[in-house]
This record gives sequence, structure tokens and C-alpha cells, in this order.
Amino acid sequence: MKEKEFISVIKEVLQSEYIGDDCAYLKDLGIVVTQDSLVENVHFRRDFMNPFELGYKSVAVNLSDVAASGAQAKYLTIALSLPSDIDNEFIKSFYEGAKFACGNDVKIVGGDITGADKVLVSVCAIGASAFRKVSSRKCAKVGYKVVVSGLHGSSAAGLRLLMQGKRQPKKFIDAHLMPKVQTEFAREISSSVKQDYAMMDTSDGLLDALSTIANESGVFLDIDFNKIPYDKDIEQFDFWQNMVLFGGEDYGIVAVVPQELDCGGVVVGEAKLGLGVNLRFSDNSVYYTKADVEKHIFEHFN
Amino acid sequence: MKEKEFISVIKEVLQSEYIGDDCAYLKDLGIVVTQDSLVENVHFRRDFMNPFELGYKSVAVNLSDVAASGAQAKYLTIALSLPSDIDNEFIKSFYEGAKFACGNDVKIVGGDITGADKVLVSVCAIGASAFRKVSSRKCAKVGYKVVVSGLHGSSAAGLRLLMQGKRQPKKFIDAHLMPKVQTEFAREISSSVKQDYAMMDTSDGLLDALSTIANESGVFLDIDFNKIPYDKDIEQFDFWQNMVLFGGEDYGIVAVVPQELDCGGVVVGEAKLGLGVNLRFSDNSVYYTKADVEKHIFEHFN
Repeated sequence: MKEKEFISVIKEVLQSEYIGDDCAYLKDLGIVVTQDSLVENVHFRRDFMNPFELGYKSVAVNLSDVAASGAQAKYLTIALSLPSDIDNEFIKSFYEGAKFACGNDVKIVGGDITGADKVLVSVCAIGASAFRKVSSRKCAKVGYKVVVSGLHGSSAAGLRLLMQGKRQPKKFIDAHLMPKVQTEFAREISSSVKQDYAMMDTSDGLLDALSTIANESGVFLDIDFNKIPYDKDIEQFDFWQNMVLFGGEDYGIVAVVPQELDCGGVVVGEAKLGLGVNLRFSDNSVYYTKADVEKHIFEHFN
Repeated sequence: MKEKEFISVIKEVLQSEYIGDDCAYLKDLGIVVTQDSLVENVHFRRDFMNPFELGYKSVAVNLSDVAASGAQAKYLTIALSLPSDIDNEFIKSFYEGAKFACGNDVKIVGGDITGADKVLVSVCAIGASAFRKVSSRKCAKVGYKVVVSGLHGSSAAGLRLLMQGKRQPKKFIDAHLMPKVQTEFAREISSSVKQDYAMMDTSDGLLDALSTIANESGVFLDIDFNKIPYDKDIEQFDFWQNMVLFGGEDYGIVAVVPQELDCGGVVVGEAKLGLGVNLRFSDNSVYYTKADVEKHIFEHFN
């Protein structure tokens, strides 16, 4: 996929100030909007994931984007494209999963059903910005602290296990199939912060989020690897540090906020003068430019 | 596609008051939202339709839903799923078509790009309800007049020509590939009507729209076929009346509104006591129940 290349072309055609963040902030309407698709054999495989889990995750990935924007998720539409072998049971179970992900605060209000060769789910989520401050990945500032939430790398560990035909340990499988959305952490920040700040989710990996914020904001993020929260059992995997740093789909959150802001999460570093991301390990440190990070970008099945 | 069956299952799981109209009206946010997908070889074929036309039509079908809701379309997100043979030229041309359909009033503010086997476009459109009255297909009332806009059957004629390998007459081809959205007609109604009213577009055919409004509102729509606006050249086609009544994708609008409302369009009939739709021809009349209409439902390529 030439995703980044295509996005440059789109930006050139549209000349729009909106394209960039995961959610678009529509100030005049007081809302944010985001749309994310999950494609069979690209983002999920039906032999790994049952319809309930697919419904859950399709919604969760969009709620995560809204949470990371700082807004409060309110409404969803879901467009389903379905091959002819899909039956009523699949639909029922998919929507039960979707509804479970919505909880009590988010409503599914519409969508579309069409035919297709493969299952494709496209969800559009709308959040309200009232009583919150909307984030932008452009707004990290020198002196701000870097706070993260969630356990990093667990989803990648789960995916690796699934690819090996394993279903244990369940905590890693669940992290991949039924990721938790960091709604509470994001709400805490966006409803108490006064200044502009940067926040995004780690859907494409922790280092991708750090690097994107660093490069869009024009700051240098100095990060202590040992402070990054991860499940210690991940250390059994080969190249486990890569899972923590580059593994996608944890749907954790990275926020770069004023030092004095009182919020949950774990402080892992600080924004300094410069550009890019520095990772300090116990015995050395590694500096990542934007290009370095892009080489590692989280890949789906194809 | 078991679309209607699946929608029943979804309604049962969600127990939502929103599922029904093409747009969901989110009163607390003062917006409507809709999402519609176009799937390669289901809704379009790349040999019939160039990327510019595809971009245009993907946007137009959603703007038509927003217009028919009575709201003013403001923002769009576009999720593209693309096979590996898609190049920058395709993306550029697609977005130029999308932008052309948006005109000056609607902005594309985000979306998503993923891989897939076939081209799939899913568009989410947001409209503002301020200074307008939002329609519902449930709100036709006895005594109201039935008004339609657009030329009915032209898109079906265009599709039939394309299937025969023809590219002329261009007006029919254009009606199918680059349908006009009836924004002005819908605006006139929704910004001047005081009472509740019914309005929907004819994306699945004129009789589908009439029948849906009749059955959802619990009224009998008595329609004079001879008053329905269509291009006279369509009479050269076999079964041309079927094209006018059942052909999809004209994106005309059917509105059932108070008699005294001053609006454009053509009055084709009246809402009366009863249920269903009656079509009066010069020499006879045909009564359609909901089930009768569903038998004729507009089919895509598969």
C-alpha cells in the first residue's frame, strides 16, 4: 500500500486544512469526525476473529481515534460489505460486539449494507467537543511531559501467537482481538487541560505516535524506554522491544501535555528543543528520525 | 444480498430509534449523518466509469441522502479500499471528481486508505440542520401533495446502454455516471415548510421511494403516471415504464408535503386514506403493495 504517497496526492488536490489528524475537528458544528475501515485478510482474518470480536474491534478503533482527539464519542454509523456466505448469525453477533464496544454512551445510528467478495467494515464516528479541549498532533511544546496509557506491544504479541496457531496466553490474544479503548485517560486530559496539547492513539505503534507528534510539532521527544508500560511476559518473545515500540493496534494513547497537568498514565519523557525521538535504554540510546520510524511501520497481513 | 433481512436483525440487536431513514438525525448536535458505500463490480465497473466519475458519484449519492433529509451538507469523510494496481493518477482523478461534486459548500475533511482486492469507497456525510426542518419518511399525511424532482429512469437507461457497450445518447450515460443532486429543490422545501413532512431520494427507484413513504407513513399515495417527469427519448427502450418506475440511481427526490407549500418540482399525486401506492395510467391503474414493489427492487451488478 502506497498510503503515505496517496495521502500527499489527496492533500494536493484538496488543499484542505483538515487532513492530518485522525479526527477532523469541525469547529462550527462542535464535533469531531473520523472514519476507519477494517478489511478481511488485510486487517483481520475470519479464522482468527469471530464476528463478535470483529464488531467490537471495528467500533473500538474508531472510538480510540475520537478519544485521542479529546472529544466525547457519541454516535457511529457502520457500513458493511459482505460476501454471500454471511448469514443472520454473523450479523447478529457482529452487532452485539459493536454494541458492547459502544457501552452506554455511544449510539449506532445508521450505515449501509452492500455485497462484496470479502468482509469490509467501515465505521464513521462522531464525537462532541463540548466541555473538552480538542487535541492536535501539531501542538506539543518544548518543556511538556510525554504521558502514555495502556500496555504497549501486547496486541502485536497476540497477533504473533495467532499467526502461530496459538490461543494462549489469553491476555495477549484479547489485547489483539478486543483492545481496550483509553477513554477515561483521554477524558481526564481533554476536560482539564487549558493549553493546546498533542494527543494521538498508538494504532500504528507507540514509536509511530511519538514520531508523528515530534515531527508535526517540531519538537524532540526524549523517552526513557524503561518507563514505558508493557506486560512483563512479553519479554519471552524474540525481539520483544520491537513489539513494544513498533507493534500496532494496542490503542494506547500518547499525550504531550504541560508538566503541571494532573492526569493519569505514565510519564515516559519530555519534549525538548530539536526534532525526532530519542529512546534511552539502560545502556545506550537510539535516535529515530521520521524516516527511521517509517521503515518500521506496522504492517498488516498484506 | 439479504439486505432487508439483515436490517431486521440489526434493528433487533440495537433497539435503536435511529435506523430507518437514510440519514440519522442527531438532534443534540444539530446534524444529520449518513454513510453509503460503492463497491467495484457491485455498484460500478471500472470499465464503465473512470476515476473522476467514481469520485463524483461516491460523493453525490451521499449528498443526495443529506439533501433528502432536509439538512445542508457540510462535511465528508471518504474511506478508500484499493487493490495494488491503483496508482497516483487514479487517486488524483478520483479526488478531483469528489471535489467537483462537493462544489463550494461541502468540504472533504478526512477518511482512510486501506488495501483490498477490489475498489471500495465508503463515504460518510454530515449535514447541518440549522434553519431547516429535517424530513422523515414516516411523516406523510393524508391530504398532502406528492412532489417529485429530477428526470426518472434516465440513469437506468444509461446503465442499460453501458451494458450494451454503448456510450450514446450521452445524456443517459451522464445521468448514470454523474447524476445531479437535487440540492436546490430539497433546500426550498426544508427551509420553508412548517409542518412535519416526508422526503427521500430515489436512489433505489421512484416507486421504491413512493412505496417506502406510503408504508412508513401509513398512507395511500395516488399517483398520475403521466405527470412523472422523464426524458421522452426513454420511450424508445423496451419496458421503458419500468425504467421510470423501478430504475435506480436517478437521485431524484420525492417529497410529500402540505398542499399549500410553495416549492419547485412537479406535483404527481396526493396522499389519501389507505396504504400503498396506486399508479394511474391513461387507460388503467395499478395498485402496488409493499411486497409488489420489493419484487421489482433495483438490482446492481450482483
